Amino acid sequence: MNKVLKKEHFILPEGVIYLDGNSLGPMPKTVPQRLGGVMTEEWAQMLIRGWNKAGWMAMPSGVGDAVGRLIGAPKGSVVMGDTLSVKVYQALAAGLKMRPERKIILSDTGNFPSDLYMAEGLVGLLGQGYELRTVAPEEVAEAIGDDIAVVMLTEVDYRTGRKHDMKTITELAHAAGAVMVWDLAHSAGAIPVDLAASNCEFAVGCTYKYLNGGPGAPAFIYIRPDLADAAQPALSGWLGHDSPFDFDLNYRPAKGIERMRVGTPPVLQMAALEEAMKVWEGVDMADVRAASIALQEQFIAEVERDVPQLTLASPRDSAVRGSQVSFRFEHGYAAMQALIDRSVIGDFRAPDIMRFGFTPLYLDSDDVTAAVKVIRDVMDNRLWDNAAYKVKSRVT
Amino acid sequence: MNKVLKKEHFILPEGVIYLDGNSLGPMPKTVPQRLGGVMTEEWAQMLIRGWNKAGWMAMPSGVGDAVGRLIGAPKGSVVMGDTLSVKVYQALAAGLKMRPERKIILSDTGNFPSDLYMAEGLVGLLGQGYELRTVAPEEVAEAIGDDIAVVMLTEVDYRTGRKHDMKTITELAHAAGAVMVWDLAHSAGAIPVDLAASNCEFAVGCTYKYLNGGPGAPAFIYIRPDLADAAQPALSGWLGHDSPFDFDLNYRPAKGIERMRVGTPPVLQMAALEEAMKVWEGVDMADVRAASIALQEQFIAEVERDVPQLTLASPRDSAVRGSQVSFRFEHGYAAMQALIDRSVIGDFRAPDIMRFGFTPLYLDSDDVTAAVKVIRDVMDNRLWDNAAYKVKSRVT
Repeated sequence: MNKVLKKEHFILPEGVIYLDGNSLGPMPKTVPQRLGGVMTEEWAQMLIRGWNKAGWMAMPSGVGDAVGRLIGAPKGSVVMGDTLSVKVYQALAAGLKMRPERKIILSDTGNFPSDLYMAEGLVGLLGQGYELRTVAPEEVAEAIGDDIAVVMLTEVDYRTGRKHDMKTITELAHAAGAVMVWDLAHSAGAIPVDLAASNCEFAVGCTYKYLNGGPGAPAFIYIRPDLADAAQPALSGWLGHDSPFDFDLNYRPAKGIERMRVGTPPVLQMAALEEAMKVWEGVDMADVRAASIALQEQFIAEVERDVPQLTLASPRDSAVRGSQVSFRFEHGYAAMQALIDRSVIGDFRAPDIMRFGFTPLYLDSDDVTAAVKVIRDVMDNRLWDNAAYKVKSRVT
Repeated sequence: MNKVLKKEHFILPEGVIYLDGNSLGPMPKTVPQRLGGVMTEEWAQMLIRGWNKAGWMAMPSGVGDAVGRLIGAPKGSVVMGDTLSVKVYQALAAGLKMRPERKIILSDTGNFPSDLYMAEGLVGLLGQGYELRTVAPEEVAEAIGDDIAVVMLTEVDYRTGRKHDMKTITELAHAAGAVMVWDLAHSAGAIPVDLAASNCEFAVGCTYKYLNGGPGAPAFIYIRPDLADAAQPALSGWLGHDSPFDFDLNYRPAKGIERMRVGTPPVLQMAALEEAMKVWEGVDMADVRAASIALQEQFIAEVERDVPQLTLASPRDSAVRGSQVSFRFEHGYAAMQALIDRSVIGDFRAPDIMRFGFTPLYLDSDDVTAAVKVIRDVMDNRLWDNAAYKVKSRVT
């Protein structure tokens, strides 16, 4: 039984089985009405007054609390804004400042490339011996030494779904005197996260995947509450100032997590996300996890029974897997196009990964069975072997 | 005659005279329908496929070209994204990398504080003698010496509307070997700008003021085309990568201005802005400027004739003034609240500036006369002397 199923809260196109909510979540039904109201009743009628009267200025904190509830973050410790890449940069820069005598950021090759790129840009800007060191995911524990300033990892691998042990790695980082930054892009709304218990200094994540905030929805950043007043913002924008409307000439960081705000918040995207977060009211992440594992186990069993052409790329043990299942297939790109053409939507990640996300808020056991049937048909009948499916477009 | 008047393209609340389009532009009428379509036909129906099928991925460049046309930037030299503060940071960081032997960013005290804060954050992160030097606006020319790496100025002063001479200062910066960064927040859509002729290396700006993109609309960044392939992105996010969907482990900047993209673009805000930019089709900035000056001159003349309590804070010479007029008044905050309560909306900037923006796309000469009547009433009858108008809320 999937006790968190809320299909009626989402718009899902007729006939589509959507296994890509780990890339872009579907639209919660009430978002258009909410955004319509923000446009015609707030922007159009209140104009500049909307910042106060409609509460636009407070949205980054208010939505931050709603996201915080799902990841074990205390009230007032999460704020929304910008993109995940920018939030990664903020966390890394603040983390390095906390360990001025050290110069190495440690990450792994399973991390999402943009996290690595942002770190590369930061150490390149700093020069002076700063370094990004990248090891294989299974070598991270061993690589955490007392020369590491910041350990930055994504909890759930975007390709395979392999899950790091957040608590253990954070303990290792702390034992070595390093600051810990977790990227929760594939965790928030996907699996239970207990940030407070993990004791990590920083966490960041996006909201357009499992949280269904819409394309380009704002990102989030968390700082452990006892450290927030000491964190030095590198991106010291006016809305992270203690008193932005005094228009002082010098920057003075706001108290707590508010200092991680940068520029003017994207009100339309914030409103869409705020509305989308309502779907989560009363939802327990432990129930989501149980339902997700049940769907994934069913999917693996049925694919392995019926589709021998595919090889499991995700960990078999659900305890170390996030909320997605990936299979390897030599012609994975074309095969995924063939599936999408037949209304089973997953995605492809180079070089050969077919990726399927499991989101129990709008997927049930019948969807899984129906999807596997289509996958089997595409494989058994080599429907992927079609020139049209081999032309790589920029986004898959 | 105001030949650019297009009032019918905007929603303006009944009875309101809106003199704050320099802070947040009003809503173009077609935005709700467009955004409704993006939600229900694109996000909801195409889901992840929207990135290609609906052209979401290309929006930052396409909208960049529409903005570029208004500021004299060649096609392909402007890209949208993030917030203005983040774009300032990108321009400054790339500018410093172009002058590795110099360490000083020069700006002025009339610059918008967030620009100064971002520079402060950047030099603080770099340490090693990097410095932000700030002088009075009238001392900038003299302060440009051969120790300056980057000169960063906002063309139009956010408080007084005083306009820097873009071409002359850029020439001075170049003669001293410095890189020039212009912030066009109060210029784009307000006054004619010829970026190509100015020869500056970087320009940045926002789109929620005169371009009417909505609250939190994306910012823009321009790099002079001959330099774009050499600019080093400090915020090296995946969508600025040459081939983001190869998921390489190392960053390799995209060709040209695309390298200034960072994370996933905010599609809903981009669509609202793209729609808002349609209002500008066929509009000549020289006509906008002529109409704006006529409205401003009328306003100054009528206020100085009828409201002696106010003192002009803007330059009297329209040639060195942007598209706003500011007056000083000791009780400016309360007076502006009294005006807003009477449907004449301007805004207040500390310590005593009452600021009025002139936007000829939706303001005409009758609006100016009607506004001055209300201002006179508020002043002559001391309507500002009311406890309710003296409580400072966070945003004005």
